[in-house]
Amino acid sequence: MDYKQHIKIVEDWPKEGIKFKDITPLMADGKAYKAAVDEIVTYAKEKQIDIVVGPEARGFIVGCPVSYALEIGFAPVRKEGKLPREVIKVDYGLEYGTNVLTIHRDAIKPGQRVLITDDLLATGGTIEATIKLVEELGGIVVGCAFLVELGYLNGKEKLKDYDVLTLMTY
Amino acid sequence: MDYKQHIKIVEDWPKEGIKFKDITPLMADGKAYKAAVDEIVTYAKEKQIDIVVGPEARGFIVGCPVSYALEIGFAPVRKEGKLPREVIKVDYGLEYGTNVLTIHRDAIKPGQRVLITDDLLATGGTIEATIKLVEELGGIVVGCAFLVELGYLNGKEKLKDYDVLTLMTY
Repeated sequence: MDYKQHIKIVEDWPKEGIKFKDITPLMADGKAYKAAVDEIVTYAKEKQIDIVVGPEARGFIVGCPVSYALEIGFAPVRKEGKLPREVIKVDYGLEYGTNVLTIHRDAIKPGQRVLITDDLLATGGTIEATIKLVEELGGIVVGCAFLVELGYLNGKEKLKDYDVLTLMTY
Repeated sequence: MDYKQHIKIVEDWPKEGIKFKDITPLMADGKAYKAAVDEIVTYAKEKQIDIVVGPEARGFIVGCPVSYALEIGFAPVRKEGKLPREVIKVDYGLEYGTNVLTIHRDAIKPGQRVLITDDLLATGGTIEATIKLVEELGGIVVGCAFLVELGYLNGKEKLKDYDVLTLMTY
């Protein structure tokens, strides 16, 4: 399927010079959304995953239907102060300042095979931080799946030790 | 299914006196998560919905798998500054101050039959705001579905003009 017909390029958002890739039109088209998720479901089956992990909020949009389709668990990664029980956390650099991501300490069991999902692979910083959380809990990251890849930001280089699936590249 | 066995009650979170209902253990159990979503899918079919709408971030956890299962669209409702194209917005009262929710202006077509999803019905403020956005775009709210209802907060009274499904009540 030509997924790109369902992506809107928004010029100068969130700031000048950025051509933002808006995935909401893809989600608005039920057939395109299902086809995209199903490609990730097929990939996840090949990787024999036990659980899906996704960072808020758009990682939920991709990962939750994958969990549902495979009847396996989903573990949310959230910003600090959002998860109510004991968490582990990781700081990671953003263009300006740093951000903190957290996961419940009991979200992953040691040895579980984990698929990480998000809508878009840019520099890879968010996913690298998510991988750190999963690995600290003893999970094995067997794949990372994204709808969109910004090839010119070279996020795959940061994830070179991991298997990565992307459905479209800009 | 006894969903409550998968909900953890967290005392004094996010502040003293609150018994927070943590849904992450339900999501971690693939069978329970799928069973819960499937009840909402059955309800959505009865209501002949055209599109699912959910507020970030936990509304995505419930609504995105429903969209996937029915092969229909999902429209995210997000906090201000998160959606990249033209939006409409609504202010609504929180316990302290106000919050703003937005939806893309082209997210709903007039006459579309809409299911609104979220994890938890408390006072109903977030859902009332979401309903306003959907109706301003000409959508018809044919149902609202939640995993958990806090009956003592009487959110159903605020939604008394709408059909509401909840899977468990505290």
